[in-house]
Amino acid sequence: MKYCSECGNKVSYYTPEGDNRPRHNCHFCQIIHYSNPNIVAGCLPVYQKNKILLCKRAIEPRRGYWTLPAGYMENNESVEAAALRETREEANAEVNIISLYTLTSIVHASQVQMLFLAELPTPEFSSGIESLDVQLFSFEDIPWNQLAFQTIKNALTFYIEDYKAGKFPLHNVVLKAPPKQLIKP
Amino acid sequence: MKYCSECGNKVSYYTPEGDNRPRHNCHFCQIIHYSNPNIVAGCLPVYQKNKILLCKRAIEPRRGYWTLPAGYMENNESVEAAALRETREEANAEVNIISLYTLTSIVHASQVQMLFLAELPTPEFSSGIESLDVQLFSFEDIPWNQLAFQTIKNALTFYIEDYKAGKFPLHNVVLKAPPKQLIKP
Ligand SMILES: [Zn+2]
Ligand SMILES: [Zn+2]
Repeated sequence: MKYCSECGNKVSYYTPEGDNRPRHNCHFCQIIHYSNPNIVAGCLPVYQKNKILLCKRAIEPRRGYWTLPAGYMENNESVEAAALRETREEANAEVNIISLYTLTSIVHASQVQMLFLAELPTPEFSSGIESLDVQLFSFEDIPWNQLAFQTIKNALTFYIEDYKAGKFPLHNVVLKAPPKQLIKP
Repeated sequence: MKYCSECGNKVSYYTPEGDNRPRHNCHFCQIIHYSNPNIVAGCLPVYQKNKILLCKRAIEPRRGYWTLPAGYMENNESVEAAALRETREEANAEVNIISLYTLTSIVHASQVQMLFLAELPTPEFSSGIESLDVQLFSFEDIPWNQLAFQTIKNALTFYIEDYKAGKFPLHNVVLKAPPKQLIKP
């Protein structure tokens, strides 16, 4: 941020009194502009418990790689609504959310990703505008070397392990290392 | 937003091509400025399983009312780190996080609140700069009529119920009604 989004004057970057980190301050509006992490919400859609719905990305970053349906949460919606909307937009699929399954803080990208375990009740889906392809994968067919992001690889790995154990607890992950492909999950 | 934060020129508010909701567009920078929900992270600190640490707010909104230590997550930190930092700042308390306990989408405020169940290992705490008072409360002493926000009331209610059951699962809540006191939990 270089200019105040309310008045258009230049902002000053320094630590306000009583605060402990630098912010963008507007002297004209007398306001502080905060910048905060974004939320990415999505689903891990499962059909008959052992087939997982993946989408092949039609957009950068990681075009052509496989991912779970997920995207930025919008204002005035719940996390679950965002996850369902992304699943609808990217895979034309209607799923039933079971529970929050992964919560990942991607520290270097100031992003928090929440993926919900979800049931795909019928094998009905197709490519949305942001997908080149959408397919159901058996565990043994998952394209591990063509996954778009570390968070997706983690979620699929967790699911296959949890499937054997028959329990699907929340997995809480903090990613700090900045491999390039993690910057925009 | 009225002005582009990168160049200072006026932005135009309309739905970009291929999008489905209006955004602030800068024609000079050729960029779209997105606005997304904020995360509030905090703890439900428990001492010896049956005493809960509450803070009396020294700041608006809801000055003088009791709350759990929580606040806006900052860039480049994990959700847990934010929760621990807020507990340190508001209550001068060092806690051990047990698990994510409440996930609340406050839809009308475009806010997502995550509270972690946390153990306060020793009864050491004091008022941070944003607190007028910090105290441990037995269940029967909780000041129900002087709680700052609905999300805090929910978390305390869940905890007392779960304490009886001996299980502390994640509680996923969507708040849509806009009572005034919920706007900034
Ligand atoms: Zn200004
Ligand atoms: Zn601009």
